[in-house]
Amino acid sequence: MKNVILLIMDGLGDRPNEIFDNKTALQYSYKPNMDFLAEHGVTGLMSPVSYGIRSGSDTSHLSILGYRPEDYYTGRGPFEAMGLGIDLKPGDIAFRANYASVVNDMVVDRRAGRIRDTNDLSKKLETEINGIKIIMKSGVEHRAALVLRGDNLSDKVSDTDPHGVNSKPLNTSPLDDNAKFTASIINKFLERSRKILNEHKINKDLISNGKLPANEILLRGAGKVPELPDFNIKYNLRAACISGTPLIRGIAKLAGFDIIDVDGMNGRIDTNYKNIINSAMESLNKYNFILINIKGADIGGHDKKPEIKKYAIEETDRALKPFKDVLNNTLIVITGDHSTPCSYGDHSGDPVPILFSTDGIINDDVKKFDELSVSHGYYKIKSDDIIPLILSYSDRSEKYGA
Amino acid sequence: MKNVILLIMDGLGDRPNEIFDNKTALQYSYKPNMDFLAEHGVTGLMSPVSYGIRSGSDTSHLSILGYRPEDYYTGRGPFEAMGLGIDLKPGDIAFRANYASVVNDMVVDRRAGRIRDTNDLSKKLETEINGIKIIMKSGVEHRAALVLRGDNLSDKVSDTDPHGVNSKPLNTSPLDDNAKFTASIINKFLERSRKILNEHKINKDLISNGKLPANEILLRGAGKVPELPDFNIKYNLRAACISGTPLIRGIAKLAGFDIIDVDGMNGRIDTNYKNIINSAMESLNKYNFILINIKGADIGGHDKKPEIKKYAIEETDRALKPFKDVLNNTLIVITGDHSTPCSYGDHSGDPVPILFSTDGIINDDVKKFDELSVSHGYYKIKSDDIIPLILSYSDRSEKYGA
Repeated sequence: MKNVILLIMDGLGDRPNEIFDNKTALQYSYKPNMDFLAEHGVTGLMSPVSYGIRSGSDTSHLSILGYRPEDYYTGRGPFEAMGLGIDLKPGDIAFRANYASVVNDMVVDRRAGRIRDTNDLSKKLETEINGIKIIMKSGVEHRAALVLRGDNLSDKVSDTDPHGVNSKPLNTSPLDDNAKFTASIINKFLERSRKILNEHKINKDLISNGKLPANEILLRGAGKVPELPDFNIKYNLRAACISGTPLIRGIAKLAGFDIIDVDGMNGRIDTNYKNIINSAMESLNKYNFILINIKGADIGGHDKKPEIKKYAIEETDRALKPFKDVLNNTLIVITGDHSTPCSYGDHSGDPVPILFSTDGIINDDVKKFDELSVSHGYYKIKSDDIIPLILSYSDRSEKYGA
Repeated sequence: MKNVILLIMDGLGDRPNEIFDNKTALQYSYKPNMDFLAEHGVTGLMSPVSYGIRSGSDTSHLSILGYRPEDYYTGRGPFEAMGLGIDLKPGDIAFRANYASVVNDMVVDRRAGRIRDTNDLSKKLETEINGIKIIMKSGVEHRAALVLRGDNLSDKVSDTDPHGVNSKPLNTSPLDDNAKFTASIINKFLERSRKILNEHKINKDLISNGKLPANEILLRGAGKVPELPDFNIKYNLRAACISGTPLIRGIAKLAGFDIIDVDGMNGRIDTNYKNIINSAMESLNKYNFILINIKGADIGGHDKKPEIKKYAIEETDRALKPFKDVLNNTLIVITGDHSTPCSYGDHSGDPVPILFSTDGIINDDVKKFDELSVSHGYYKIKSDDIIPLILSYSDRSEKYGA
């Protein structure tokens, strides 16, 4: 049985770009190590979740790891809360939250003037009500997440976000009988929050400067943090995750992965690529399945900056050299979780290149790792085909039948 | 509407092998007729059951014939019993059985010293208890299968195999209320068997020669023989099966195929390839769908003998010549039920080449029938896509919609 390294280059897939002579970032980048691995293995195109689906990193990583998003993706609340680094537990109820401005009992700005920093406000709001712990964490600008932790909670409660201005902020309502307790907690929390926010120095300063206060929390997208069957038990593996992105670490943790910290690793373009790969290599003495997520390519895509995407690809490739020396006992899999074309600036439904490289398996005729080259390769698969192929190519599959 | 010949070369898929200059058996073999058929048709890669699944011949043939193994594969008991040539009926309960050695009420060898021949023992054990017919058939060494036939039977009974030594042999227990009758029959059978086995000359001789007796039956993998919807009715065909392998004949028979016997055919490498193909050709006057399974390639794979695999491929190819003359009114389909790479020695999760050849259809650019060549062909499919494509290319599909 072989060890497995699954490297997900976030947002890897691309479309042709004029800046790159109408090539994709992968086509245009210098990446001899990925090409070597493609040449010494099988390749193909992988559609995250399914053909034409514009997957998020959350739904795609769930699907790649064998958790059908239809069954386990419980909405944006839990996954955005994970993305903000809240250490969620199965059963927690999580919401997306906006700081908003209320004047004369009416919502006048759903984004509180895109306030820069609400960390102090969020810290002040954390509390416990009737045995339910309430966790609040700020994101970028007005964005935040709210998490309820405790017994007898339900995610069947309505949004408090009126989804428009010149409306009163809403209280939440239970959508079924089992959600009455949860709704009462949230409404108590909101009432309490209004007082705290209106009296907070930050808001008093904003008002005295003629700006809108962040004096209301609008909640939407309630979801229950899913219980993921343990990846290690399901596939008989010892799995660890290396990622600078809280969302990916959160999903991996829910799936039972150990989380490996790496010096200099972050979810940005200036992460330490070499340390990430070296740390994966060293971890193979303790784990036999390492999931790596490197964020850079996705950032270039979202920012419509092809050079950034190219930089992330080339820096990653440079770090990959050690992979070539362990193919006798290690299966290397490289793909993306979705495409984020620089020409598009967001996730698209395009398939993503994938390679499976290890000694002894068939090498298809593909010698370059990019969208066009691998389209002549062995596979046209979906994300949920990846784990069965990994188990097969790492000699870990049980026979089905006789 | 065209006739159909579906030739399954068991375990056909391969991986590169040093003995073959790092080519697969198909790449290395001389097989002008298969190449001709590939050139005059469409080709592709077919993943048995699904991507990366290490299918057995049982699950794969079920899936190829349109019976989802998730629905119809009821465990190894029934399919191993079929493999031993027991003529099973839907509703029969079948177990995998081991002859084991019990000394002082403890299992000391789960394989009875890998006893060579238990045919006489098995014959002696066959009986009828409370209206239930009990069929016992020996396999290789200590292996056997046990079948219960009659009314009110259930497969929800526990193994009697302690799955280890220095344990007492177990009686079976019903796993639900409906299985009480079945469990009582099995336990009566086991009690009776112990007496017969302990008194049998074979065992007395073994003991007097200082060897372990085969004096206990260990049962595992209970399963009910599935009722397969009739293939002929489902697809409006008259179907027959030609195979030297009892398992394949068993599945085909359950699916309503007629079974054609062929002079000199067996499930070995020295089967009469020419007679098999000629018999299929002659049977086209009576049947319009012929399933052929030829075992040889799989044997070479399991035994890690590339030359054997090559021999089976080349002998099969030589026999195929008549296929080329009937393409005007016959669809020829050639594939494998799974890969059995000689370098691996067992079924792997690799996809298998497939070709569909008949006059008048598109010819893709593929001119050779091997893993790499067909990877550039028309299709990347799974086994359950085969029948719909067969119906389509043989002009037998109903339109779906208008």
